[in-house]
Amino acid sequence: MRLHAQHQPIALMRTDCHVCRSEGLSPRSQVLVIAGDRQVQALLYQIESELLAPGQVALSEAAWDELGIADGDPVLVRHTPVLESLSGVRRRMYGQRLAQADMAAIVRDVAKGRYTDVHLAAFLTATAALPLDAAETIHLTGAMVDVGERLRWRAPVVVDKHCVGGLPGNRTTPLVVAIAAANGLVMPKTSSRAITSPAGTADTMETLAPVELDMDTLRRVVDAEGGCVAWGGAMHLSPADEIFVRIERELDIDTEGQLIASVLSKKIAAGATHVVIDIPVGPTAKVRSDADARQLAQRLQDTGAHFGLAVRCLLTDGTQPVGRGIGPALEARDVLAVLRNEPDAPPDLRARAALVAGAVLELGGAAAPGTGTELALATLARGHAWDKFQRICAAQGGMREPPVAAYVEPLLARRAGRVIGIDNRKLARLAKLAGAPESRAAGVLLRAPLGSAVERGEPVLLVHAETPGELAYALDYARTVEDVVVIG
Amino acid sequence: MRLHAQHQPIALMRTDCHVCRSEGLSPRSQVLVIAGDRQVQALLYQIESELLAPGQVALSEAAWDELGIADGDPVLVRHTPVLESLSGVRRRMYGQRLAQADMAAIVRDVAKGRYTDVHLAAFLTATAALPLDAAETIHLTGAMVDVGERLRWRAPVVVDKHCVGGLPGNRTTPLVVAIAAANGLVMPKTSSRAITSPAGTADTMETLAPVELDMDTLRRVVDAEGGCVAWGGAMHLSPADEIFVRIERELDIDTEGQLIASVLSKKIAAGATHVVIDIPVGPTAKVRSDADARQLAQRLQDTGAHFGLAVRCLLTDGTQPVGRGIGPALEARDVLAVLRNEPDAPPDLRARAALVAGAVLELGGAAAPGTGTELALATLARGHAWDKFQRICAAQGGMREPPVAAYVEPLLARRAGRVIGIDNRKLARLAKLAGAPESRAAGVLLRAPLGSAVERGEPVLLVHAETPGELAYALDYARTVEDVVVIG
Repeated sequence: MRLHAQHQPIALMRTDCHVCRSEGLSPRSQVLVIAGDRQVQALLYQIESELLAPGQVALSEAAWDELGIADGDPVLVRHTPVLESLSGVRRRMYGQRLAQADMAAIVRDVAKGRYTDVHLAAFLTATAALPLDAAETIHLTGAMVDVGERLRWRAPVVVDKHCVGGLPGNRTTPLVVAIAAANGLVMPKTSSRAITSPAGTADTMETLAPVELDMDTLRRVVDAEGGCVAWGGAMHLSPADEIFVRIERELDIDTEGQLIASVLSKKIAAGATHVVIDIPVGPTAKVRSDADARQLAQRLQDTGAHFGLAVRCLLTDGTQPVGRGIGPALEARDVLAVLRNEPDAPPDLRARAALVAGAVLELGGAAAPGTGTELALATLARGHAWDKFQRICAAQGGMREPPVAAYVEPLLARRAGRVIGIDNRKLARLAKLAGAPESRAAGVLLRAPLGSAVERGEPVLLVHAETPGELAYALDYARTVEDVVVIG
Repeated sequence: MRLHAQHQPIALMRTDCHVCRSEGLSPRSQVLVIAGDRQVQALLYQIESELLAPGQVALSEAAWDELGIADGDPVLVRHTPVLESLSGVRRRMYGQRLAQADMAAIVRDVAKGRYTDVHLAAFLTATAALPLDAAETIHLTGAMVDVGERLRWRAPVVVDKHCVGGLPGNRTTPLVVAIAAANGLVMPKTSSRAITSPAGTADTMETLAPVELDMDTLRRVVDAEGGCVAWGGAMHLSPADEIFVRIERELDIDTEGQLIASVLSKKIAAGATHVVIDIPVGPTAKVRSDADARQLAQRLQDTGAHFGLAVRCLLTDGTQPVGRGIGPALEARDVLAVLRNEPDAPPDLRARAALVAGAVLELGGAAAPGTGTELALATLARGHAWDKFQRICAAQGGMREPPVAAYVEPLLARRAGRVIGIDNRKLARLAKLAGAPESRAAGVLLRAPLGSAVERGEPVLLVHAETPGELAYALDYARTVEDVVVIG
């Protein structure tokens, strides 16, 4: 029946199946489905229907993929083994710290799909309630690297960058990669999809070119062009991270320790040696104060150093979105405008990208200290970044135009005045309710940045949606909150 | 197809269904399924199959039950509303205390089935990591009472009892109810199923008589006989509790605050005025020290007092199981042996039941202070408790014999000596692996209590199972741990 349940492996069996009876399996049991040397842990549901014969099992698409079998192949269904690593999760819930071996056992079981949503939520909540300390953060980072693939590059210097997020539209990555590669640096960039934001870099880049590259393709792109922008999840660099991210998204949380382990595990696994991390600071950004940002920067540097990774953090302005678009396709359009040196390209996005790229050029040895930003701006202005970006997209499988939303509705200024505040969190929530990031064309276009003057009735935001249901959902929300854009 | 998914409401729709497309619904979305004035929040899966027509939806049994509709009836499927109470859960994760209104909103949404397993696990983990304080415990208790039904009785004194558990086989409740009712007290006992133990009182009682009584039947049984032993969940006295318990079971946790709210919300909702709470204390019982037990007793009394409930706590010996059987049917056999005054009835179970019943008789005014235990023993010895118990079972729908396990395997003493220790936790785990409480006949029969002498090769435990798979599962575990029963 091709049962789609996202990542969830599901096994369907008859209530009167002899396997269920002799093994004592009941609905919502966790079961192990084994086919040859492959196995998957699945959630069992039972049916009373002739759709299945006794002894037959139906599987969700995720389970088929994991097992790599064909219709009619025999499988073995049995109880899952006792999950010993959960005792570590329970101890952690009650405030005991985890040793390296505990963390390694937990992450191994997570990566193998043995943790239910309940177990995952408990682990992540426990590490939110009592934050991971320095040692635990190192243990978690190392454990997450160990369960994944690891890239190795011939180049002695491999640069990378990351933005801790929380700032809608801050889509500098494709620009930074193009600038760095155009200046001869090796930058094999793997990005994530959105955790709690309306778009991750991988979501945005996917509207411009394929990002689900296998290891061979990625290597070929980087060997040829010096850079790429690929989805990290397809590379299995940090498979546990993708699983944690799904639950963090459902809980709408993102803790410091998990953030550090998530970011650095992927950088280490991707083979980076030098990493620039952009930390936007603002009252409604993810990091709200300079003090918090400096603490995060220190912990990122310390944890990175433990793994031989040079980390440089930039504290940047996080008081308002960067660029105009929020949502995968809308952000991609901003990126293209900057690359193409279009006259109305968002100047703030150009400046931010040049700042981050400048730090990458300096840290990677392609620019003298203090000259990086200037070189980055010149690389953009001369069209070298645009050339490089097109070559990268072509190498990744072909460049394409971002999709356009079928439904667009303006939100109007309720009074005349000057824009004195923009709530990044509410803006992000609005874009998500409109369907981003799953609906690629959905999101919000900001028409009135901080400081701009607006007339009453003039559009301050445009909500883009792919379906009327999602448009209505977003507009409902916009009506209940008043201060997404504050006019003073 | 009669899809069995335990408590989980599930909606199955086609991937190409116009409702899914226009609403932007994807697999594993939470959806609201509405039929007239009833609605249920369901987990959406999608299929590519002619089993369903476009626009058709299939439901799991739990969803059918909740909606109370028939095949072919129209339903409306839409996005679930934004869950505002989750912001309270998130704040609680990060260490902020919850006010009464926060807790009420959370418990209301939980009781309505709006929380996913991930949300529930986060809430419960947050209240394990930073335990509920006195005020939060009162808020939670009150909120749990408010979302459920509430029984009212004409009698001015309504007694109840509870054991905080952690002691396998401590099945005094059916005995205490029979003794109290035989002495003229009103004791409408509602019990729970197992949380993390191999049997709850409701599980054990169900092997002797129906326990899923509706409100009218329960009232009729109590009016006629003065007492009953019913499953509380069928009464919807504390519907949120049943939901929390399911997740606590999966996590194998049971925190003090949740325990207090769970116990007292059900007592208050059941209309009790005077409650005796048995707190077994021992190194492997749920409560491990006298200090912990005294603190728990104090918090139970304080929280109860806030709701006008008189609470008396008994600290009892929790160093070893009470009785011989661990598991629903095996415990029921111990109860019957005591009631029938059989010569080999477990003397410790008789003594413990008399102690608790004595406290109930005194607290309820049916015995002078210091004379309760004596009266309880006499009620047993004269057969009055057995008479009363049979009448109660008949009124609940008919007395029956507990089932017998198809597979029994002894665990033999590896050396001769005296039993110097019994690990209640490992014993409970062994019984659970054998299938208890879902498999009613499954569990463990203890042949060698503390202090008894055993020969090498003599059976110290008998593992009972209903299926060879579960038997093997339990024996596997028994082989990996050595010290379930310690022979010195």
